[in-house]
Amino acid sequence: MNLDDLALPAFERGWVWLVGAGPGDPALLAVGALHALRSADTVVHDALVDTRILALASPGAELIYAGKRGGKPSPKQPDISARLVALAREGRKVLRLKGGDPFLFGRGGEEALALVDAGIPFRVVPGITAAIGGMAYAGIPMTHRATATAVTFVTGHNLSGEVPDDLDWGALATGAQVLVFYMALKHIDQIVTRLLAAGLHDATPAALIADATTERQKIVETRLDGAVSAARDLSPPALFVVGEVVRLRGGLDWLGALSGKTLDADPLGHRDLRDAV
Amino acid sequence: MNLDDLALPAFERGWVWLVGAGPGDPALLAVGALHALRSADTVVHDALVDTRILALASPGAELIYAGKRGGKPSPKQPDISARLVALAREGRKVLRLKGGDPFLFGRGGEEALALVDAGIPFRVVPGITAAIGGMAYAGIPMTHRATATAVTFVTGHNLSGEVPDDLDWGALATGAQVLVFYMALKHIDQIVTRLLAAGLHDATPAALIADATTERQKIVETRLDGAVSAARDLSPPALFVVGEVVRLRGGLDWLGALSGKTLDADPLGHRDLRDAV
Repeated sequence: MNLDDLALPAFERGWVWLVGAGPGDPALLAVGALHALRSADTVVHDALVDTRILALASPGAELIYAGKRGGKPSPKQPDISARLVALAREGRKVLRLKGGDPFLFGRGGEEALALVDAGIPFRVVPGITAAIGGMAYAGIPMTHRATATAVTFVTGHNLSGEVPDDLDWGALATGAQVLVFYMALKHIDQIVTRLLAAGLHDATPAALIADATTERQKIVETRLDGAVSAARDLSPPALFVVGEVVRLRGGLDWLGALSGKTLDADPLGHRDLRDAV
Repeated sequence: MNLDDLALPAFERGWVWLVGAGPGDPALLAVGALHALRSADTVVHDALVDTRILALASPGAELIYAGKRGGKPSPKQPDISARLVALAREGRKVLRLKGGDPFLFGRGGEEALALVDAGIPFRVVPGITAAIGGMAYAGIPMTHRATATAVTFVTGHNLSGEVPDDLDWGALATGAQVLVFYMALKHIDQIVTRLLAAGLHDATPAALIADATTERQKIVETRLDGAVSAARDLSPPALFVVGEVVRLRGGLDWLGALSGKTLDADPLGHRDLRDAV
């Protein structure tokens, strides 16, 4: 492939590009993000960016880690933003590389506003978010004609580290047929308790997806009332998917099929519905 | 770039790969999708796939159009699925290429189950969905610390062509701070009416994004009660975004800034909040 054919924009000195690295698998990196990685001289990345993706950076590029590691306190957001501004002012080509998508639980908006405040020009390159990548690799559709016309993405904890308290959990639980919580492990007990209190059935199908799309990906199918114990063996980051669509994994776990699992063409027992128009 | 370095899987004869083409801009195609395009001998695509993306297919590949065009009736889903099965049985390398992501309003689940039913092996390559790409290009974050911890994606019409009637619109309207409707133009009047009836304020910020991330992209900022008239000048496909996050576009419209627009570093008037930890 010749990236030149796509007329991708040049990475100019003194600019910051806010780029989504996708959920983990380097195959899910966007072509524009790859172009950015190969053009930048400075890459400021967080903990969720796969090392195989960082390896695609230009050989001379400086890689700067700006995430949480080993229990040490993570850099405060204003410090990261200030760092981006300072690097751009040095005339560098600054790639701010975030796991998933920068504008979906990525705090990209805050960093971009800090750049605007400092007069630093920037671009945004979206990425495949963890939920979409993780559910595709788990064989769980976000939407399916027989079961889902809406899906809600929620963060499992807010910036104070608590379960979001600015949400109407009753409405959240029933507003869409599929709920996907990001960073769900820390407060899985509270999340489950609130969803049950909001009226979701304790047998609602659910799944936990840890390290989505990476070589370490681990998926546990469970029910809403079994999620807390199912979460015990998992490490962050993990998604928590709640909804009937989880049952479709019985037919759509294509990664499992690659390892010999037999798939069920009618996992919902709805053959008549599936074959309708 | 050398795709070989990523050890991407070989495209074997008799297989179907369900691949998301992303929202439009070829720069948003995933590396794995590009690899699939260059490896497949048959590409079955729908109307929302940009011609610049189709141009990346292997020169000898057969391109088969399976979408709606010019008011003619679109192929029925079982017919498309049967076509995929037949092509795979001919021993072809069949790439089923869909706009956005195959598992989010893409009917990829249905097609995959038909493949399972016929014993055809398949893979899934997720893509950047229109909402994520379109909002990034519009400079509207999905989530922002001061305004949003949850976002809901909804289809603007179900497979019967009607506004989804299996949703609790009251819960939908209040369950997340950001709502994004796909294919929103056809029933924009009903969508607005239902959201207002559900209690959303008529001045809730809103935006319409047509032809997201393509060269034809058109964005209109409005309020909830102005969306119906704002929609009159737009053609499908279009996203309808509802929520306070739309106001952030005043600070984050980076594409506008490339054309000389001045950005406001404090579009919410919340400088104190933004600068807090």
